Order: sequence, then structure tokens, then C-alpha cells
Amino acid sequence: MLPILLVFLLTTVLLAKNNISRLNLMPMPEKIVLKEGQFRLESNFTINIVGGSADLLFKGVSRVLTRLSGRTGLFLVYPSPFREEEDDAISMTIKAGRAGKLVLDEDESYTLIISPAKIELSAETDIGILRGLETFLQLLDSDEDGYFFPAIKIEDKPRFPWRGLLIDACRHFIPVEVIKRNLDAMAAVKMNVLHWHLTEDQGFRIECKSFPKLHQLGSDGLYYTQEQIKDIVAYAGDRGIRIVPEFDLPGHATSWLVGYPELASAPGPYTIERNWGVFDPTFDPTRKETYEFLEKFFKEMATLFRDEFWHIGGDENNGRQWDANPQIQKFMKKNGLADNHALQNYFNSKIEKILDKLDKTMVGWYTDTQPVLAKKYVIQSWKGRKSLYESARNGYRCLLSHGFYIDLIQPTAYHYLNDPIPEDSILTESVEKLILGGEATMWAEFVGPETIDSRIWPRTAAIAERLWSPVYVNDVDDMFRRLDIVSFRLEELGLTHQINYDMMLRRLANNYNIDALKNFVDVIEPMYTYSRDHPHVFKSYYPLTRVVDAARPDPLVAREFDQLVDRFFAEKTDDIENLNAIAGWLNMWKANHTRLFQTIQFSPVLKEIETLSEDLSKCAAIGLEAIDYIKKRQKPGQDWIDAQLITLKNAQAPRGETELLVVKSIEKLVKEINQPGTTIFDR
Amino acid sequence: MLPILLVFLLTTVLLAKNNISRLNLMPMPEKIVLKEGQFRLESNFTINIVGGSADLLFKGVSRVLTRLSGRTGLFLVYPSPFREEEDDAISMTIKAGRAGKLVLDEDESYTLIISPAKIELSAETDIGILRGLETFLQLLDSDEDGYFFPAIKIEDKPRFPWRGLLIDACRHFIPVEVIKRNLDAMAAVKMNVLHWHLTEDQGFRIECKSFPKLHQLGSDGLYYTQEQIKDIVAYAGDRGIRIVPEFDLPGHATSWLVGYPELASAPGPYTIERNWGVFDPTFDPTRKETYEFLEKFFKEMATLFRDEFWHIGGDENNGRQWDANPQIQKFMKKNGLADNHALQNYFNSKIEKILDKLDKTMVGWYTDTQPVLAKKYVIQSWKGRKSLYESARNGYRCLLSHGFYIDLIQPTAYHYLNDPIPEDSILTESVEKLILGGEATMWAEFVGPETIDSRIWPRTAAIAERLWSPVYVNDVDDMFRRLDIVSFRLEELGLTHQINYDMMLRRLANNYNIDALKNFVDVIEPMYTYSRDHPHVFKSYYPLTRVVDAARPDPLVAREFDQLVDRFFAEKTDDIENLNAIAGWLNMWKANHTRLFQTIQFSPVLKEIETLSEDLSKCAAIGLEAIDYIKKRQKPGQDWIDAQLITLKNAQAPRGETELLVVKSIEKLVKEINQPGTTIFDR
Repeated sequence: MLPILLVFLLTTVLLAKNNISRLNLMPMPEKIVLKEGQFRLESNFTINIVGGSADLLFKGVSRVLTRLSGRTGLFLVYPSPFREEEDDAISMTIKAGRAGKLVLDEDESYTLIISPAKIELSAETDIGILRGLETFLQLLDSDEDGYFFPAIKIEDKPRFPWRGLLIDACRHFIPVEVIKRNLDAMAAVKMNVLHWHLTEDQGFRIECKSFPKLHQLGSDGLYYTQEQIKDIVAYAGDRGIRIVPEFDLPGHATSWLVGYPELASAPGPYTIERNWGVFDPTFDPTRKETYEFLEKFFKEMATLFRDEFWHIGGDENNGRQWDANPQIQKFMKKNGLADNHALQNYFNSKIEKILDKLDKTMVGWYTDTQPVLAKKYVIQSWKGRKSLYESARNGYRCLLSHGFYIDLIQPTAYHYLNDPIPEDSILTESVEKLILGGEATMWAEFVGPETIDSRIWPRTAAIAERLWSPVYVNDVDDMFRRLDIVSFRLEELGLTHQINYDMMLRRLANNYNIDALKNFVDVIEPMYTYSRDHPHVFKSYYPLTRVVDAARPDPLVAREFDQLVDRFFAEKTDDIENLNAIAGWLNMWKANHTRLFQTIQFSPVLKEIETLSEDLSKCAAIGLEAIDYIKKRQKPGQDWIDAQLITLKNAQAPRGETELLVVKSIEKLVKEINQPGTTIFDR
Repeated sequence: MLPILLVFLLTTVLLAKNNISRLNLMPMPEKIVLKEGQFRLESNFTINIVGGSADLLFKGVSRVLTRLSGRTGLFLVYPSPFREEEDDAISMTIKAGRAGKLVLDEDESYTLIISPAKIELSAETDIGILRGLETFLQLLDSDEDGYFFPAIKIEDKPRFPWRGLLIDACRHFIPVEVIKRNLDAMAAVKMNVLHWHLTEDQGFRIECKSFPKLHQLGSDGLYYTQEQIKDIVAYAGDRGIRIVPEFDLPGHATSWLVGYPELASAPGPYTIERNWGVFDPTFDPTRKETYEFLEKFFKEMATLFRDEFWHIGGDENNGRQWDANPQIQKFMKKNGLADNHALQNYFNSKIEKILDKLDKTMVGWYTDTQPVLAKKYVIQSWKGRKSLYESARNGYRCLLSHGFYIDLIQPTAYHYLNDPIPEDSILTESVEKLILGGEATMWAEFVGPETIDSRIWPRTAAIAERLWSPVYVNDVDDMFRRLDIVSFRLEELGLTHQINYDMMLRRLANNYNIDALKNFVDVIEPMYTYSRDHPHVFKSYYPLTRVVDAARPDPLVAREFDQLVDRFFAEKTDDIENLNAIAGWLNMWKANHTRLFQTIQFSPVLKEIETLSEDLSKCAAIGLEAIDYIKKRQKPGQDWIDAQLITLKNAQAPRGETELLVVKSIEKLVKEINQPGTTIFDR
């Protein structure tokens, strides 16, 4: 059923040898020199550690040995590393100059030398060693005789020091084990910051001992205990990942105010918000009790989060409560605060002072007015590179998140090519230095524990490469080739982006047999999130188990089909094999609706995509007719073309909040068929 | 590729209407009366709760609404239940007489009445309500018009009060989220006791504040914190499940003695055991420090575990350290303790006194000598029904685990028919009353977090039915029919028995395409565990990622094939469709090795099953030849038969610790082909 897919992947594995451009590395290292020969992996494989933090490296290397053993089935004789051992029989030596610190700009570089007899991994810090170990694991290969690593020399270091992933644990709660496996995945692609969005209108997600009504009344019982927070912070630290907590202020604050309505700018009572959007509840910035409360709160939280950086959110305060409160208006006049921006700047300055006392550096979302804060403040841009450069030119350090909003379901290639500092950048070097990197943002309106991995992975690996690898590493096709391998390997870390797909389809089909449903969902995509959410009627408790939730961004089958069509037009001569491959998919889709209809009849949850499935079959039939014309070297009439284009256009209307992906390629077949110059008839 | 499977499952769903014997209920309720009509499920569905514990029922009913919404995709308008609401528009009324207690013999009965206009669920206790809600969910059905429940009246109660699952969290550590999802699965099939094996030679898995070296030195860092224990105990309680902890004593104690070697019967030092088996390290029962230590330890643990019952293990103490210790020998002589059994009885009596002070009732494994303990002691039998009856006749309450050792990979049907009190039992009523029920035991030598669900589920649902449903519910075919549906539904609770299968195959194949590998692993089974472990060379750190780990007990495809062959011989006339279905599978397997060989070549971890895969293809070819004879009504010569039987016999030799399953059915085809009387030629 999937002939193309099979060939593609086998080729990838087969060609991976002795050819840098076929190595399955991601992010791509800075310098690679392939050598002759291979290091063969046997069960007597040993690793010896020299230098660095003994605990971090023992745990890190033990994890690597477990993964090696897991992939190969080898009964490793030495399942744990040695320490400072002098022995010629050691297979791999790891040397760290010193223990790394979990701080911005820590050295993460490493050098990996694999020769047929020995492997050496060295780094200035043990965090660099962790990065190198992931590269090492990505090099594992196999042939008929067993497992091996290619002889190679790699020298590598990151391009940006801040390579983050934001996880919103508020709109839907994201349990401990989900956070942990995502930390593992981040480490696998060398990301180093988890930006943990912990408070929101829809939920206050962390236990607070000073003000227990915060988590008790603001979370529906879904929050992290402080023990869990400590556990996760340690888990991240073991992987060389910093954790930056976000406590969103002064807006996005409904859940705080359920337990403490007296802190709000309007009288309560408040209840946990069940809708998505921007809401009114806002802290009262004019009362000293607000700052006393926040200082005590931050002080307690600072015992849990040791990172220098501290995110206070700060955007999307709609100002309505401020406008409506006479006392606040009076306060503004008295203090010469011209508008709500000025009042928010006042608030931020007060918060800045509290954080200064705690040795924390404030991070906030970009707002249209520039801040009046110390220059150590870090601004996170969600409004395009222009706003990023504006912040940097004003002397603030900044992070790019615009273009990395993975919750929106945009093309992976778009995220991949979204360079914070493109090659043609005209920024001065000193301004460029203020751009610390970027963060993928996983907002959680439309994801829960079951689906979040499939929205983050594998796409975030492409963003990880953008932020780690040299600027010139930007071949989209090669990125996808490696991304599919990374996606495959992430499963060993417990990521569920792949396994939950079939499970969700089984539940939807109400049957073990999901062939027809899968054929269909393999080529649809959830619609652009802002369009999906546009009516703002979705409630936080609605199910995330529909077809739109099972569907994945940039699915492999659709990409493969689009590539086949592109290749057909790109090539100068007719490639019959390619054309037959295209026809193979189209034939399958043409017949699919009849099959899927059987399933839909007994699974009402599928009704919402019935006409979309029908349209896929219709479009496939059109594609086959087009191929028929091509094969017969016969030009269709314009009437035929026009009629088909209407059908194809209609098929692109979303249903069940999902869209058909391959229609555009079929449209191309129909549109291009008669074009003079580009037409295949002129070949 | 799987025509039979498809038909089988669709049929199941289609026939589920208006026919008790086709209802997908498991465990089967005591009394069912199907009525006319259906209750249609719409998004305005509401539940109102009356009586019982408000908190337990609010949470329990909310979970049910979430599962209903998850399966149907319905945007429920009322995602939480009402409480004591008077409104004719209420769809479902739940009435609990009182809050249930987490004690042995608590009332778990319930009555569920579904009529087209209204649903009523009532029970003496809210725990009974939880049991009834699972039945309610199992009744959800669908047709072209949407979702519905059949009109029905069910009156139900359990046959045995103790329906347990033992999880060994020691040999391999089983993380919190794995325990939780298994508690959900237990609740789904109305089990009510988690027997949690927390200490073993290979690991001490619980945080102890009085003696922190227990978990610090005895666990490799893999233990439950007390906060986690409390969380899990509460989680179980919310589901009406008691938790009985096991602290294995005086043997199986190596991990305790790593931190506290002074408590052992021989001088230390001790290290965590890395092999499987029975080992020497044993507590010294002659020193008062031992009892002081254990009393303090138990006292701390008793703050975490509130259940009346307390498992002290107590078996497999090999006595070597006692034999070799002159002081212990002296003590025995002085106290008139004739042998190690007597010494262990002495130890147990001391422990009993400690537990008495804590209001705990001791549970222990059966040993060959009867205990000299108070009659409230509970004996768990792992040695056959004879030992169970012996204990009961001696006046002890007891539990059956023999025949429920799900770690051993025995046939599900064997577990299912293993009735603690069979219909033909000759026990007196008063002795029968001492048989409290039984426990499935998931010992963890060969499972880890990734595979444990696939060993427990779905098979344990068959054991759950044995312990809940009336004795006469024992139709194996119908059990399997319902078991496959239960297995399907368990996925919504996060169980991984199904999803991890494909993932493990992908890792083994080193490729997304697993078709050939799956065709093969679908019809093999891990070999009987005691044979597998016989050489006792397996180390605790060896990988659990091989083919044997991916393979599952009693796989569906093999069962389907065996059924087809059985049906062929059972029927009086030739059923050509059936014969063709058999040939369909055989043709696929015949061709499969050539396909799988391509994968094996690039995945050395599969080498160990190469000849087994080859044998499957060979056997399938033999089966096809047999069918050819049958179709041609031609009798093969005895030479041909003898030659094939040799090949078929050889194919049954295990490789990679796995066995081919379908060979016996092929053997049947070959053997029976010429038998006078039974032969198809005589039809």
C-alpha cells in the first residue's frame, strides 16, 4: 500500500554510509570530516569518563548505554561507565574539562573522533559532552555483520545560546511524564531551555505554600506539586537544560484571582476561565498589597527555579478593568501615567525591583511600546523579525518566537527557514549579539497530554537545527530526510507523536482495522489554528479526540506525493516510473472513500469528514484523468480543465476543522497540463 | 492483508444489538434483561448524583463524561455532574445509599436500568456506583444516526470480594504513571486490590525517612517518594481499589541490607542483586534490633498505607545464611526451634505482634509448613488449588494465585478456567467462605515500563471475570470475543499494550515499514518464562527491546488462524470459504520470509529469529500442500506426511526465546488429512 514510502526510507538507511550529505545528523554539526573505516559495536563496549561532574556524566552516559543496548539488543557486559580508569581495552573515552553551569552562554562545544579502534569525545564542559553524546548516538549504523559507527571527526558548537521550547501547561494541563519525555526529546536535538508557562486564565498550575488558594482554587486539582517541580528541574539539569518559569502578569490572570479576588482591578468573584482568548481580569497595579503578594510569591518560587531568567509574560492586557476602575484612573492622573501602557510600565518597573532582589533577570513578551527597564531585560518577540530588531536596536537582548509558533500548524519548512539573523542581515555585529536565539511555542488551546507530542515533534527538531547549526544549513529537502529519521528515533525516548496516531484512529474508527481511515488522515492537516479558533466558541473541556486532533502537521505521505508531482514537472523528460507512482497513490485514494464510508457508517464521530473523504476520492479521479491525458499525449479542452478546477477548489474548503493537502498538487497536474513552455507535451 | 480480522471485528460490532450473548460486557454481570429500544446519547446529556461521597462520585462521574466525550467527539454541554438536582430534564440519575469503605467485603453491587427516556444507576455504596459506571460505558453503541445505549436492566455483584493484581515494582522499576494507568484498567474490569510488591533483592522501591539508606542505597535512585505513594493510594481509592503493600521478609531482602548490613544473618557488605532467582541474604531473626528496626519501619509505612492488610512475603528463604551462622544455630537450640521452618515461624510470630499493634492483618505466601499464626492471617497460594484448600481447611483465609501467574506466558484460556472454587468443588460452605478470591501476579523479571502493559492486558480481564462473574460464565470463545473489545477500550485509559507493539517493531526493523516483521511477530509468542529463565544468566540490566519482548501472549492472529483450522475439522461439510481463508494466511506467511529477510539484513537485532521466520514460511508451504491434497480430494502418501511432520516438529523449537504458534494447527492439517473416520475424504 505504501510503495514509495518504503523505498524512500530504505534508501535513506542504505545510503547513509561514507557520505556526509547522507548522514542522519540533526542538528547538523558545524564541521564534519568522514574517515575510512568503522568502529564495530560489540557487547564488551566500554566507556570511561574523565573530568566533569561525576554524577551528571555517570547518569548521562548510562542513559546512552541503555539506548545503545535498546536499539541493538546487545547484552552489554558493562552497562555503566567507568570513571578515571586507565585501561587500553576501553572502547570510548569521554573527557570533560570541567562541570558546566546551567547559565546562558555556557560552553556547549564538543569534539567527537571515531576511529576503527577507539572513540574519543571531549569538551570544555560536561554539558558539551551531553551534546556530543547525542551526535554519537545519531551516528549508529548497521550492516549484515552488526552495528557500527563510521570513522569520523566532528567539531561542533551552537550558533545561538538560547534554543528553547515553550510548553503551555495551563490551557490544558500537561502531566509530569509528558514534560519529562519532552525534555528528553529536547536534549536529543540539543535544545537547552524549557520555557514553562505555569499560570494562565484557564489554570494556575503550581503548588504555592504561601498562598495555597492559588493552586487549590485555580487549577481544578491539576497542578504540579513542589516536589514534582523540583524533580523536573533536576531532570532537566541532568540533560543540560535550563528551565525558565513564566508567571503571566498583570493580565492572563483569572486563575490567580479565583482564590485572591482582592488583588484584581475589579471586584470578584472570579471563576476559572473555560474559553480561549484575551480576558479582562488583571492585577491591580496601584495597590501595595499586589506587590507584597507578588514578592512573597516570587520568593517562594525562587526556591524552586534556580535559573537567572524569570518570565513575567506581560502581553495582552486589554486594560478594560483599569479603564473602568475610578481609583486606578485617579492613581494614574496623580502619578502622571498617561495611558495603560504607562501604567503597565509602572507595574513592570515595580516587578523588576522585586526580581532584582532575588537576583532574577526579567523576560517578557514584546509589547508595542518599548519598555523602560534596565537593559538586562530580555524581550521575546511574537510579532515578526521587525519587532525583534527594534528591541535589539534599542539595546535589549531578545528572542525570536515569531515564526516558531508550532501550535498554529504552519509548514515545517517555514519554521525551518525562519532565521533570527538571515545571511543577508544588515544588523551591526553588536546588535546581532543581542539576539540570543529563539523559542518554539507550544500553546495548549488545542492539545492535551495525548496529542501534544504530535504538535511539537518532529517539527521542533527543524527549529532546533535552525538555532544550533550554521546559517548556511538550509536545504529543506535534506532537512525533511533527516527529520523523518529523528522522528523515528524520538520514539525510543517515549515520545508519543507516532504511537498515539494509530491509537486515535482506532478509537475514531471504533475498530482495529484503520486502513481506510489512515489513508485519508495521512493526507489531511488540522486547519490553521487562528482560523480554527476564530469563532472563539471552543471550551477547555471539549474533546481533543476528533479527526482534527489525530491529523498531524506536514504528514509524510502528503509530502511524498507533493514531491513526486514536483519532480515530474522539474524533470526534462517523462519519468514513467514517477508517473506510475503518482497514479498509484491516486488510484488508492480514488477507491478509498467507498471503503472509509463503511467505517463512517458505524462511527458517527467521523461524519464531520465524510464529504472531505468523498472529495479526496473525486480529486484523485481527476488526477488520474490528467495522467491519462499526459500518457496519451493528448491535450484536454479548456472546458474540462475549468470544470476540474472548480471541483478541486471546492475540495480545499476545510471540514471538521481539517484540510485536504494533496489537492494542490493534483491542481498543478490539471493546470500545467496545457501550459505552453512548461507543458510536458513540449518535452 | 488481514481479511479475517476485519470481518471478525465488524461482525462483533454489528451483532452487538438486541442480543445478550453479543453484548461486549466484561466481566459478565450476574443478571441481564434486555428491553426494547435505546437511549440516544446527545450533547445535552446530564448526570445527577444523589448520596454517596460527593468527592469520589464527582470525580468518578466526571471521568466517565470525559470518556464518553472522547469516544464520541460530542461537545458535552454539561461536562460535570450535577448534585442532588431536581429536574425532569436530567438524563441519568445516580443514587448511592452511602459512601463505601475501602475494606474487604464492602458492598460493590449495583443496579443499572436504561430505558429510552432515562438512565438510572443505583447502589448501596458509591463503590458499587463506580462498578456500575464501567458497565454503563461498555454498553455504549452506535449506528448511522449516532450513539446510543440499549434499553436494559442489569443487576450485578461480585462473586469474590478480593480481585487483585500484583505488580512487582522491584525487579524492574515501574514508574508512577504506569501504576496509575494500570489502576484505571483494573477499575475498568472491576478489580479491587493492587498488591504492590515494593521490596526485593533487586531493589528497595519506597522512600523511608526513618532509614533513608534503604531507598538511597538499595534502589539505583529508582523508588517512589512518599508523596508519590500517597498520590497513588489516593488515586486507587478514587477508583474503589485497595492497595496492599508487600515488604518481603525475611528472605528476598538483599536490597534492604545494602544500607543496613548489620540486620543480615551473615556479614556484609551487600550490593543490589543483578541476577534473577532465590538468593541467600536474609534478616537475622534472632536479634532484637531486627524487630526494633522493622517495627519502626512498619510504623512509618503504616502512615502511607491505610488498608487493613499487609503482605510480608515470607517465601523462598533458602536458609543458607541461617545454617552457616553459629549464633543463629545456638539460638535455635536454646529456643527449641527444630529447623529453619520453625525459626521462620518464630520470626513470623514476632512480625505478627508488631502488625497487631498497628491494626494490620498479615498476608503471606504459602509455605510447605502450615503457619502458627492467628486465624485472621491470609495465605496466598502459588502452589496449586490443593495448597489453597489445605490452607482453607486449616481455617485460614486464602487467595489463589496459582494459575494466575501472568508473567509466565501461559494460555489465557488456562487462566480463565482456573476457578478458585470450581462448580464441582467438594469443599464445605464454611471452607469455601475462607477463599477470598485471587490475584494475577505480574512478576517483573522480564518486563519494564515499556512492556508491562502487554503482559498484564488484556489477559487479566479474563481473570477479573473469573473472580467477578458467576461460576457458569466460562465459554472460552465468547471470552475471547469480548476480551478483544476490552483490549480495544483499554487504550482510552492510556494503556500501552497495543501502541507499544508497533513502536517496538519499528525499532527492531530499524524502519517505518514493519509489514513483514509484524506478519511474523503476530504469530509467535515469548516462550514459557521458567524455560526462558532456566539458565539464570539474564541480568537485570539486559535490554527488554528484543523480538521476544515485542511478541505478545496469545496473539489475536494466531488465535484466529487456529479457530479457522478447528472450524474446518469441526464442520461436517467442506467449507470452501473457510479453506480459502486458511490458504490466504498460509500464502502470506509462505511469502513472508523473503520479505522479512530484507529487513533482517539491515537490522542485526533480528538475526536471532531468522531461522524461525524461515521455518514459518516452510510450514506455511506445507500447509498449502495439505490444502491442495484436500481440495483435489487426493490422499498423500505416508512418506510425505512423515517428512512434513519432521519439519513441523523442528519448527517448534524456540529461537530468540520465542516460539511459533500456528505450526500446531498446520500439523493438524497434515496429521488429520488421512485419518479414517475423521478425514475430510469421508465427508
